[in-house]
This record gives sequence, C-alpha cells and structure tokens, in this order.
Amino acid sequence: MGCESEKNNSILSKLATNEEHGENSPYFDGWKAYDSDPFHPLKNPNGVIQMGLAENQLCFDLIEDWIKRNPKASICTTEGIKSFKAIANFQDYHGLPEFRRAIAKFMEKTRGGRVSFDPDRVVMAGGATGANETIIFCLADPGDAFLVPSPYYPAFNRDLRWRTGVQLIPIHCESSNNFKITAQAVKEAYENAQKSNIKVKGLILTNPSNPLGTTLDRDTLKSLLHFTNQHNIHLVCDEIYAATVFDTPQFVSIAEILDHNEMNCCNKDLVHIVYSLSKDMGLPGFRIGIVYSFNDAVVNCARKMSSFGLVSTQTQHFLAAMLSDEKFVANFLAESARRLAKRHKHFTHGLEEVGIKCLKSNAGLFCWMDLRPLLRESTFDSEMSLWRVIINDVKLNVSPGSSFDCQEPGFFRVCFANMDDETVDIALMRIWRFVGVKRSGDHETTMMEKKHQWKKNNLRLSFSKRMYDESVLSPLSSPIPHSPLVR
Amino acid sequence: MGCESEKNNSILSKLATNEEHGENSPYFDGWKAYDSDPFHPLKNPNGVIQMGLAENQLCFDLIEDWIKRNPKASICTTEGIKSFKAIANFQDYHGLPEFRRAIAKFMEKTRGGRVSFDPDRVVMAGGATGANETIIFCLADPGDAFLVPSPYYPAFNRDLRWRTGVQLIPIHCESSNNFKITAQAVKEAYENAQKSNIKVKGLILTNPSNPLGTTLDRDTLKSLLHFTNQHNIHLVCDEIYAATVFDTPQFVSIAEILDHNEMNCCNKDLVHIVYSLSKDMGLPGFRIGIVYSFNDAVVNCARKMSSFGLVSTQTQHFLAAMLSDEKFVANFLAESARRLAKRHKHFTHGLEEVGIKCLKSNAGLFCWMDLRPLLRESTFDSEMSLWRVIINDVKLNVSPGSSFDCQEPGFFRVCFANMDDETVDIALMRIWRFVGVKRSGDHETTMMEKKHQWKKNNLRLSFSKRMYDESVLSPLSSPIPHSPLVR
Repeated sequence: MGCESEKNNSILSKLATNEEHGENSPYFDGWKAYDSDPFHPLKNPNGVIQMGLAENQLCFDLIEDWIKRNPKASICTTEGIKSFKAIANFQDYHGLPEFRRAIAKFMEKTRGGRVSFDPDRVVMAGGATGANETIIFCLADPGDAFLVPSPYYPAFNRDLRWRTGVQLIPIHCESSNNFKITAQAVKEAYENAQKSNIKVKGLILTNPSNPLGTTLDRDTLKSLLHFTNQHNIHLVCDEIYAATVFDTPQFVSIAEILDHNEMNCCNKDLVHIVYSLSKDMGLPGFRIGIVYSFNDAVVNCARKMSSFGLVSTQTQHFLAAMLSDEKFVANFLAESARRLAKRHKHFTHGLEEVGIKCLKSNAGLFCWMDLRPLLRESTFDSEMSLWRVIINDVKLNVSPGSSFDCQEPGFFRVCFANMDDETVDIALMRIWRFVGVKRSGDHETTMMEKKHQWKKNNLRLSFSKRMYDESVLSPLSSPIPHSPLVR
Repeated sequence: MGCESEKNNSILSKLATNEEHGENSPYFDGWKAYDSDPFHPLKNPNGVIQMGLAENQLCFDLIEDWIKRNPKASICTTEGIKSFKAIANFQDYHGLPEFRRAIAKFMEKTRGGRVSFDPDRVVMAGGATGANETIIFCLADPGDAFLVPSPYYPAFNRDLRWRTGVQLIPIHCESSNNFKITAQAVKEAYENAQKSNIKVKGLILTNPSNPLGTTLDRDTLKSLLHFTNQHNIHLVCDEIYAATVFDTPQFVSIAEILDHNEMNCCNKDLVHIVYSLSKDMGLPGFRIGIVYSFNDAVVNCARKMSSFGLVSTQTQHFLAAMLSDEKFVANFLAESARRLAKRHKHFTHGLEEVGIKCLKSNAGLFCWMDLRPLLRESTFDSEMSLWRVIINDVKLNVSPGSSFDCQEPGFFRVCFANMDDETVDIALMRIWRFVGVKRSGDHETTMMEKKHQWKKNNLRLSFSKRMYDESVLSPLSSPIPHSPLVR
C-alpha cells in the first residue's frame, strides 16, 4: 500500500493524493456506519437509524399528488412526450427560461413574497455543493480566505475549499449567548487573518443555520452587511434552508435588506445568495443548486461555470411546471412548515422527557442537542467516546459538534425530518433507554420508572404495546429486537 | 466599463476576470449568430442554419417509442410514481447501482461487445464537460500540461484548462497524411515541452475524433499507449463518439487494447476513458458524463468530485431502465449507425456535386470540409473572411478550423445530424448556390447549370419544385425566401 501510494503521489494530482477533501470526519464516518447496518423496521430493526442526514421527507405525498394530476409536466409520459426531443436536446448553460422564472418565483415565495428575484440572475449549479464551489471560484484565488461562523456545515471543507484552494477561517460562536454571531468575534477573526497576511475575500453565512436551526435577525444581518461593505469583501449567504422556517421569528433574507434599501451605502456587487431545492422541497437527488448574485460579472462567470454542473433538462422541465403552479407552491410551503413544526415539537419534547435540551430553534431539519451533562469530562475526546457509544450501541447516527468545528465539546446535530413517525419514536425510545442506563447504571429499573412516567403523563406515543414491552426487556446492544409489529 | 472592470478585477477571482474561458472563439461566436437569427422552415426560413452543434437528432423516434411502451421507467407516471420518494431522495455520489450497471453494459455494447466494463469503475460527472475537468483535476496540478492532437474540440480550453490551471500542448497533425497522429509529431511536442521545463502529465485522445470524424487504428493506439507508458504519463481517451461509427474501419476502444493484453508491459493505472450519452444517445440535456478509470485512486478521487456534478436521479433512474433493455439498445445502435451513414453519404455527396471534398471519415456527427480552394490566400485571415461570408450571407453556422487549432487554413467542421432531411437539403442548396456564385460570379446561370445537372443525374433530392425554383431566383442575401412549402 505504501508503495502504491507513493507511486500515485508522483503520477496523480495533489487533490487526488492529499487529505483536503475532508472526508475523514465523524460526520461522514457516521454515514458509513449507517450504510453498513441501516435500520429497517422489518428487515433490520436493530440497525443504525440515520439521524445524520438533513433530508426533508415530510411532504412527498403533496408532490406525488401533484404529479398524478399533471402528467404533462414529465417528458416521459404520453401527455408530455411531444416535448421530449426539444428538452432532451437542450443544453444551453443559461437553462430553460421557464425553469429560471419558476425558481425566481419560488425564491420569492419562500421569502414570504417580501422580495422579488430576477430570473436573469438565476444561475444553475450541481446542487448547493456545486453552487458553493462555483461562487468561490468566481470570487477568490487559491490562498485567499473566507470567514465562516462556526459551528458550520462539515462538507464546507469540500464544497468551498477543496478544489478552489481557498481557506476557511472560523468565526467562533459560543453557547453562552446561544451561538449568536457577535461583532467582536467577526472583528477578531478578520484581524487575526490580516495579522497572518491572509487575504480575506468574504464572509459566508448559512441562514437559517446548519447545524443550529436558528435564523439571523435583521440587525445582525445589517451589521454583517455593514462590516463586509466597510472592508470591501463579499457576503455570501447560503439560504438553502429558507423554507424550513417553521416558527417565529420570521426568516429574513439578505435580499430583503438589499431590496428595501435598509443600508445607506451598500455595494450590491458584493452580495451573493446560494440556494437549492434539496432541503426546501426535499429533492436532493435532483441536484438543483442556484447561484444568485447581485454582481453582473459574477452572474456571467458563474453561468459559464454552469457547464460543469447543469441540471438535467428532464428535471428542469418537470420542476418548471411544478413550481409555476402557484396554488401548489403556496399550499406546499404552508403544509411543509406545519409538519416540520409538529415533528420538531414532538422530537424535542421527547428529548426533554429525559432532560435533554436542544438549542431553541425555529428552522432546519435538525436540532442542536446539548449532551454536555453526559460527557465524562469536557473534552473532545470525551465527545468522541460518547459519539461512538451512540453510534455503536444506541445505534443512532448523530453528528458530533467537533465535525462542525464547534469549539465546545458535547453538542450533537440530530436530524429529525428524514424518517417517518414510527422511526422517530424508535429513535426516541433508544435515547430514553440509553440516557436511563447511562444515568442510573440500572437499565430495567430506569425503564420501568420511565414507563410509569409515560403513562402518568399520558403521552401520545405511537408505540405498540408489544414493541414497548420488548424494548424494556431487550439488552442494550440490540436496542429494538425484531418484531413484526414494528412498521 | 473600464472603471467597472477595474473594480471587479480587485474584488473577483482571476478566473472571473481573465479571458481563459475560451469563449472568444468563432466556434462560440457562430452559435451566437445562430441564436440571434435561428432558421425555422416557416417562421424564419432565411435564418441561420445551425451546423456548428454536434447533436445527434436522428433517432428520437426510437427513444420515444420505448418511453411509450415503458411508463414505469419514469418516476413521474402513475406506473412509476411509487419509486418517486426513494429516487428523489437519493444523493449518494456513487450513483444508483442500476444506473452504473446499465452504463457499463452500454459501454460494452457500443464497443461491439468485444470488451466488458466494471460498474464499480463508472463514475458520474456533469456531462463530458464535467468528466473532462474531473479527470484533469485528478491527474494534474496547475501548470502541468497535457498533449492533445490538433485539430481538437474548441471547448477543451474550457473543460480541461480553465479551472484546473493546466496547459494544453498541441500535437500538430497535417492534411498531407489525412491528419493522422504520427510518432514523430508526438515526440516533438513532448520534447519541446520538456525543453521549456513544462511537466507533461499525459496525452489526450479524442477517438473517434472531433472534428475529423475518423477513428484511430489499432497500431496507432498501441503506439501511443507505448509512448505514454514509456514516459510514465497518462493516456486519457475521450470516447464520447464511440457509437457514432457508421462505417468501416471498426471502432477500437483503448479498453480493448488493455483487455486483450496486447501490450506486454502496460501500466493500467495510467489509462482513463471519458464517456457520455450526449452524442451516442443524442441526450445532451441529460448531462451524463462518465469517468472510467483503470486506476483505483483515480476512481476514488473522481467519485468524490462527483458531488459537484451528479446526474439528476430522475434521469439516472430513467436511463437505467432504458439502457438495461438489451433488445432496445441493440436495435438503437444498429439503426443509429445506419441513419448516420445515410445522412453522411447524402450530405457528402451533395458537397461533392459542387466539388467540395471532405476528409474521408467513418464516425462522428460532422464532416471536416476542405474549402481551401475557396480561400483568396492560404491564411487564417482569409479563412475568417470566408467564414464570415458563410455565416452572414450563406447563413450557415459552420466552425472554422482555426477554432480547433488546426494549423492549415481552409478547413471547416460542418455538423449534419442535428437537423431533419429537409433542412439538410436547404443547407446543401445554400452551399451550392454560394459555391456557384463564388466561382462563376454569375448566380443564375450557374444554378441553371446545376439544375440541369441534377436532372441529368436523377438525384433523389427532397426539394419541392416551387422551393427549388424560388431558390434559383432569390438574391444571395436572402437565400431561401419564405415559402409555405418549406417544412
């Protein structure tokens, strides 16, 4: 292997032979653990439940209903096939005009109709992954840096940094003020970079935040826009979770701040939005990434880069039709927010039952779970030990804070919208049992106490009697024994 | 503008502000000329006919027939919708296993079943554009170089060079030996690079060739493989036109040379294939690009890069079904070759009628047309003057050899498979009239002579009488007057 690797080092690129891709992270290791033993209610009820994947699976019924009612939207139906040739042939990197118009309109709707978007600024990329890389390629040269509030999305190391050669400089946010981005932290990160002779080209915001599930308030946005303007650096706003906001406060897009001219002397050329349909519509397989820039030169350059990640025209055509149906979109967005709110409430209440707190959030497909009380000591080693127990014994793939570059050990991101109601409850039950065991060292007694408490509180949990009883009796290493009742 | 540009130069990347994209080429200018005045038989019969786009539009009826018979292949039909959720959610960069299996099998079929491909080496990218960039990112660092026989595909400057920062060094091929790649030319290009201290990382072959429409024979392939092995550099074979071979000699894939162990001491780790369905299936809008490498490390790295250009799972799912239908594929490939041969014969014979010769070819969606006799003098200025007349007056978008880095002025690439029979004949008629005028200076007489000659030769041309007569009478500046008979 050593010889093999050495041989490749000389004939392959640095990209192919160094470790900068960032795949060696517990974030991705957790996915592998899930892949090697995936939970299935019938086929593998003791498998790992995937809570490390921010998918939105709550509204597929609405999309499927629409499809059944609109066969013409597909080029592969009797009703739609007459468009097949023209669509299958289309490869212009501007994208289908009707697709760009529909995306612009959808972006408007997901921001409450308070701001409009210009279809001519909508640029396609291969998912948010491609869109993030594209905007960096447009703005920065290798060696340049971007500030990014931490904790942040682990795959930013791949998306923003890997092939572009830029650096990411964290703006450290702290639990003491609920991980808010402070002016002081931004200033410090910027000045430290300058001291090290690193050229800072911009600041990247994820709003709503992944992994926090929180939205930035208007004043923070204005302050950050002021800061970036003042230093003539870019503000890139990753708003791919815009429509996952399920509670107050309302989501405020950077486009609103610009549009309503809330800033006196703002250079729009420095502001760019990254968008996607992977989270808001729950369609990650369709690879819809969007770069929306207020800078004409960036629009032009990003469009040329579209060639490397164009969206399949089969998919462009389908989505153009679906997203142009304003009635459908309005209902989808309202219903999606309602279902996310319900799921979030159910899940966080379930955690609270055993004393687990999450950061208060109003958006996203995940919670930022605080397991600091369960750490043996306040170290990242301890966080990793706890994570291994959770993934190997509790059999839940959650993502440790360290993989998000969180500076305080003990936080975990837990996704809750990529499964059905029954699976959420099985996950909760595993957590309850784990926390009970963890705390008392006496599994059965604790669970019996909990059982008593549940009945007392009259919790409306969807477990079958048999499943519940079995879970109480099962050993820790196989949390949920096979049961035909688990569906 | 100067001020604007200067401002952007300081805040944007070099990629966004230099001209390395390569868009400033007559190859792309021709597309713009077409876009601004596109031919339509009824709506714009005097518009520019697009002969600069290598599309394969001859077999859509076969695909559409298959779709009608297989509604389950789409996730947007009543029959297929039960797969919608699983497919729309799927975003693994390995791709759907059934898609990779179908692609591997299709690659086998397009190489006459003489070699098999391993689905685990099939890596997705955003079209051949993305696949070409991906393989370069895996193999070379900025500043490294690849040898590429010229004339070559103009967009290689974007695909291979733009964001990767590598250089392309042409291996000059000459008309004197029908643009064959000689060992001497390869050696010279390599040695010149070495003298300039440029690190050559590989050689890129396009086989079948774009723009020549020729295939490489077995001995040339073996000789080039020997050369790259000897110098421990990569051999990247762009085989995206594999199934467009419509005549003997048979297409030989580099995979066959490797598979049949025709070389004694060949390092497979240095060999990589780029593939696509844009040309062979005529589906450029679907953005199917494939990197197929015999090097495990390259497969792994390219797969990680897939994240930036994944194929929409809607499209993966559909193609997996269609390409798994072996009977359909066998018929499609045979019929497609038959129709390409017929179209090629019709078009080249039409050119021969007025003395225009093309390089003898057996593949591709284009001819390499020799207009050297029409040049005022043998210079690229003269080539550009002729090209401007062809695009502005004759109203055909053909691509001049200079945009393919051809070293001899007077060659033009002309695409013939992206239009219907009627449009081909209108294009031929415009060429006949132009060549007649060009040569005799007497439009009507020449055309009358030609008319006489056509009748004499009893050519089965599909012009209506009225259309033909009108063409004879119309002035040069509006080649085909509006006629309801032109359909």
